[in-house]
Amino acid sequence: MNSKYKVLKFNYNKFDNVEDLISIEEPLEISIKFKRDDKWEDQNLSITMRTPGDDKDLVRGFLFNEQIVQNIKDIETIESYGEKVGQYNVQNKILATLNNSKNVNISKIKKDFLTNSSCGVCGKSSLDALEIIKKDKTDSDQPKITKQVIIHSPNILKTNQSEFSKTGGIHASGLFNSKGELINLREDVGRHNALDKLIGNALNNDQIRPKDQFITCSGRLNFELVQKVLMTNIGIMIGVGAPTSLAIDLANKFDMTLIGFVKKDSFNVYTNNKKVVVN
Amino acid sequence: MNSKYKVLKFNYNKFDNVEDLISIEEPLEISIKFKRDDKWEDQNLSITMRTPGDDKDLVRGFLFNEQIVQNIKDIETIESYGEKVGQYNVQNKILATLNNSKNVNISKIKKDFLTNSSCGVCGKSSLDALEIIKKDKTDSDQPKITKQVIIHSPNILKTNQSEFSKTGGIHASGLFNSKGELINLREDVGRHNALDKLIGNALNNDQIRPKDQFITCSGRLNFELVQKVLMTNIGIMIGVGAPTSLAIDLANKFDMTLIGFVKKDSFNVYTNNKKVVVN
Repeated sequence: MNSKYKVLKFNYNKFDNVEDLISIEEPLEISIKFKRDDKWEDQNLSITMRTPGDDKDLVRGFLFNEQIVQNIKDIETIESYGEKVGQYNVQNKILATLNNSKNVNISKIKKDFLTNSSCGVCGKSSLDALEIIKKDKTDSDQPKITKQVIIHSPNILKTNQSEFSKTGGIHASGLFNSKGELINLREDVGRHNALDKLIGNALNNDQIRPKDQFITCSGRLNFELVQKVLMTNIGIMIGVGAPTSLAIDLANKFDMTLIGFVKKDSFNVYTNNKKVVVN
Repeated sequence: MNSKYKVLKFNYNKFDNVEDLISIEEPLEISIKFKRDDKWEDQNLSITMRTPGDDKDLVRGFLFNEQIVQNIKDIETIESYGEKVGQYNVQNKILATLNNSKNVNISKIKKDFLTNSSCGVCGKSSLDALEIIKKDKTDSDQPKITKQVIIHSPNILKTNQSEFSKTGGIHASGLFNSKGELINLREDVGRHNALDKLIGNALNNDQIRPKDQFITCSGRLNFELVQKVLMTNIGIMIGVGAPTSLAIDLANKFDMTLIGFVKKDSFNVYTNNKKVVVN
């Protein structure tokens, strides 16, 4: 599932306004219903950021792979519900009803999903939740940066990664000033961890100056990564790969400039086309 | 942080036993301690799969980016604790003590982290947890596959992705038979979702035949992805990119063959070197 977005495309020294297809990212709330001691119980299990489509298969695979059910036949029904929301008009809630069987691992559900924890995207179901967090903040600040600074920043990131050249398997996030000089860089097998490490270290060393800075990340840009940069008030974010729809929507909402698909001679500006000055 | 692993490397038509550097992936358990109504409370917040190093910065960034603290100064101390574990001898638990300040968002903590939910890796803190799940299962089954089947499967995946050519920003997982024929394919912006969709759909259509199948995933291979394939009893997993240390350790433990870095003329076999027959 994808959608058309307006993109300011820089390619071989000229800018064009074009439309590009962007993969859709939307939250899906997964709940289960199961019988215990002759009573039906509902339990909200997870929120995952997914591309709509095959939602029921996603839930089947999730329940089996997490060993909440031992057998796919222990899932009696799977139903989407809730309002159709978002620009793609999809239902973002799904309920799986489990057979009242000894095969359903209720103690595991209680252990893993109730007393534990959450990763980056869990616990945030929509842009609205972000809006509440962000409402006390001023708009993000944005310096002017040149095309060359944009194009070189992923190379500078790669050159300065201590681990990438050794293993080829690690993500990085870098904090740059508007001249394109690297201020700080952190690496991790998880993209969100590399960004948390960067921001944590930069905050702790009082290095964050949104008016003169941007952040560049290896890989693709999703909701979670944009959300983290938004918290710093840094207003320009560059990714080596493609953004998701929700990454663009979030950047748009908070006036952040999102740049992706940076290659040797080209890049795409997805948001804030008018404000970003790339001379 | 990385570690040496033995790898059977296929390159330009010959096999070599070499050592390769692999990025380390280990779980980090993040907890906070905060004062409420004059009493200290402990709260386990999250388990993230990270590369050890900069752990305190990771926690600083996480607490700030998740808006559990509004200001980095609201974190009084951050201490690693627990036994040194794993082959890398690191402490995998960390406790942040928060100032008893109105700035600490206790209601947000309660809302996001206690009543909600979990993504793929949350709630599983170690290989041991997997061992418990897997102990009732037989060892994974493995067909023999040829070098050409290995090398071609990522291309077949890409060619059959309906979305990738359009957006360049979506992951895929494919189920193949031992001849290298594609049986099923699913796509998503999230790697773990693409795999959940594939396994959910294949289970629902009774397509899983571990003795004659393998699974190929776009991108890198981490703990979470290997864990999901393990649940199906399919014993060969191929990734286009690099594996993490924990992906290799997990595959090793359950006798799964893990293959990565598949390119035009080369690939790496990370586990089960003796059993996999690539003729």
